[in-house]
Amino acid sequence: MGDLLERPSPLAQDVLLLVLAAPENTAWKQRVLQRFPGLEVRWVNSSKPGGGYIVPDEVPDEIWDGVTIFFSYTPASPARMSKVRFVQASSAGVDLWVGHEVYKNPNVSFCTTNGCQSPQIAEWVIGTWLSSQHHFQRYADNMKKGFWEGAEAVDIEDSVGLRMGILGYGAIGRQCGKIAQAMGMEVYAYTRSDRSTPESRKDDSYCIPGTGDPEGLIPAKWFHGSSRESLNSFLSQGFDILVLCLPLTRETKGFFGKEQFEILSKRKTFVSNIARGGLIQNDAFIDALETGKIRAAAVDVTDPEPLPKDHPLWKAPNMFITPHVSWRTKGHFERVLGLLEANLERLHSGKPLINVVNRDLHY
Amino acid sequence: MGDLLERPSPLAQDVLLLVLAAPENTAWKQRVLQRFPGLEVRWVNSSKPGGGYIVPDEVPDEIWDGVTIFFSYTPASPARMSKVRFVQASSAGVDLWVGHEVYKNPNVSFCTTNGCQSPQIAEWVIGTWLSSQHHFQRYADNMKKGFWEGAEAVDIEDSVGLRMGILGYGAIGRQCGKIAQAMGMEVYAYTRSDRSTPESRKDDSYCIPGTGDPEGLIPAKWFHGSSRESLNSFLSQGFDILVLCLPLTRETKGFFGKEQFEILSKRKTFVSNIARGGLIQNDAFIDALETGKIRAAAVDVTDPEPLPKDHPLWKAPNMFITPHVSWRTKGHFERVLGLLEANLERLHSGKPLINVVNRDLHY
Repeated sequence: MGDLLERPSPLAQDVLLLVLAAPENTAWKQRVLQRFPGLEVRWVNSSKPGGGYIVPDEVPDEIWDGVTIFFSYTPASPARMSKVRFVQASSAGVDLWVGHEVYKNPNVSFCTTNGCQSPQIAEWVIGTWLSSQHHFQRYADNMKKGFWEGAEAVDIEDSVGLRMGILGYGAIGRQCGKIAQAMGMEVYAYTRSDRSTPESRKDDSYCIPGTGDPEGLIPAKWFHGSSRESLNSFLSQGFDILVLCLPLTRETKGFFGKEQFEILSKRKTFVSNIARGGLIQNDAFIDALETGKIRAAAVDVTDPEPLPKDHPLWKAPNMFITPHVSWRTKGHFERVLGLLEANLERLHSGKPLINVVNRDLHY
Repeated sequence: MGDLLERPSPLAQDVLLLVLAAPENTAWKQRVLQRFPGLEVRWVNSSKPGGGYIVPDEVPDEIWDGVTIFFSYTPASPARMSKVRFVQASSAGVDLWVGHEVYKNPNVSFCTTNGCQSPQIAEWVIGTWLSSQHHFQRYADNMKKGFWEGAEAVDIEDSVGLRMGILGYGAIGRQCGKIAQAMGMEVYAYTRSDRSTPESRKDDSYCIPGTGDPEGLIPAKWFHGSSRESLNSFLSQGFDILVLCLPLTRETKGFFGKEQFEILSKRKTFVSNIARGGLIQNDAFIDALETGKIRAAAVDVTDPEPLPKDHPLWKAPNMFITPHVSWRTKGHFERVLGLLEANLERLHSGKPLINVVNRDLHY
């Protein structure tokens, strides 16, 4: 396939190591090898046969030798990554990388998979919200008893005219907003920086055509700021559902506590957390559910993970927990590999990468 | 409030009887009495204190005396309805009325609440679909054991690029299509009559602003017909989810049997029935689930209703059943009363009614 008149690819000297929980996708590998002659690709399936994962530091030294491009969810030790010039994190958040020597090096490019997870995570948010509002769990329990319960026994409320607050209006939040709008909801958006102009409301992260809100046209109101006051002011907007989809950073860690749940109690807001468990103080969360300050909650992330068998969060009333699976979908790795391939193409042709992390803000 | 110079309202001699499972809405009643001077309004709460319903024939004779406008889910005997000139059914379907003397009388106007149920029923369809695709029930069971299950154990599939077939593209189907499109799905529509022109694709039933697809712009493909062949041809389009939202008529009763599930087995279509249980043959349905011809199903309607405690449908694998509650929502009766009020206004001012039933097609 090589054209002898072509200049060598800027990737000709590169070694790409992928560590991911999937068997080698040979079709993808072959296509990439043909597109970028000279690039070497090493694929490590991190799934252990008996369950659990291999972390990158457990990958043998010879596989690490010469690696310049690294695709992974978890970091490796800086020594192993000494030659790495581009990290494509396989997640939308980079909290595991903050403080890492290689992450701090401005000469190393860092990208997320922002946008690849938006459809499935937004479906998780909408699905858990609808399950709660329409009491599907109650009916599943009734089924076991063959119990046809009279319609009046249960208060069901559809979403028309209800208000969704989206804390962190990035790729995932925008797809939540898209579906919510289609259901007749009003959407309020919160971002860190001011988005008062049409231009500033755009989002340049990867977006699957037909989904999301890349132009930022959906929210009825925009809020912004990084202070506790601006956040609390947003929370007091009377949300029926609040979606947390903001990064876990030093600023946001544990910011959601007693005071915030108190504010939400006005409308008994349903709390949906698909970001990171560490955003919410567990004690305050459990108390808010036990005392009925909030109507219900759904979380795909907890602190810690995995959540220990006897952790009280499992038993909090009206709580729904899934084990960090909202990003999962049959076609997920293909979607992510498509993004990696697009970024390899951009390295190859010298164009700006997609989903570059701001190393001051960590997203 | 009366203006003495105004002509008497065409409703001045009317008696409106409402039989519905809700206590009297005095604000609504007072507003209607003021808007239409002379109209008499009688409200019967059909909910029995201990559960179950009063049927209209159990309403005392003196309350029936002189009734000319009747709002109800279930019919009353023709004798009681002898003076009725307008029936506002409180449901989207009129199958309970077909064959009724009063229904057959062309001088009696008949309207449905088409459109009032669309948001909540579409949420039920999308919510049960997402619950199944994202395996929420499995995670709810895991929660009881405090079990954080490894992500790879479960196959989750989001909706991007998947195909939804909507059998009966009326008000409810259009709102299903609206949300499905926002999730990145492709929508195919089936209607009884040909909809090949833009004008014919419009739907004039009641539509809550911002919801639905009143112009008929969402479907990628349209199908139509009333023959078994045209129906089977639609079913063979490779749907990931098929939504039944067509009326129960003599033509459609039990039309969904072994042959139809066989066609769906190609893609193991998820079957969602929010129309009437009688559309599907129970034996074939149970067999399709037991043999894995279809991946799963969700039904809010069964035949019979209520479904007896020991009915095998309760135990069919991957089946989710709710007791005819998908129409329920906190604001439902207000929405329906709003439509009734709009139709009273149209009677008052001599304009065409909303949601008039075609007495040949029964919808």
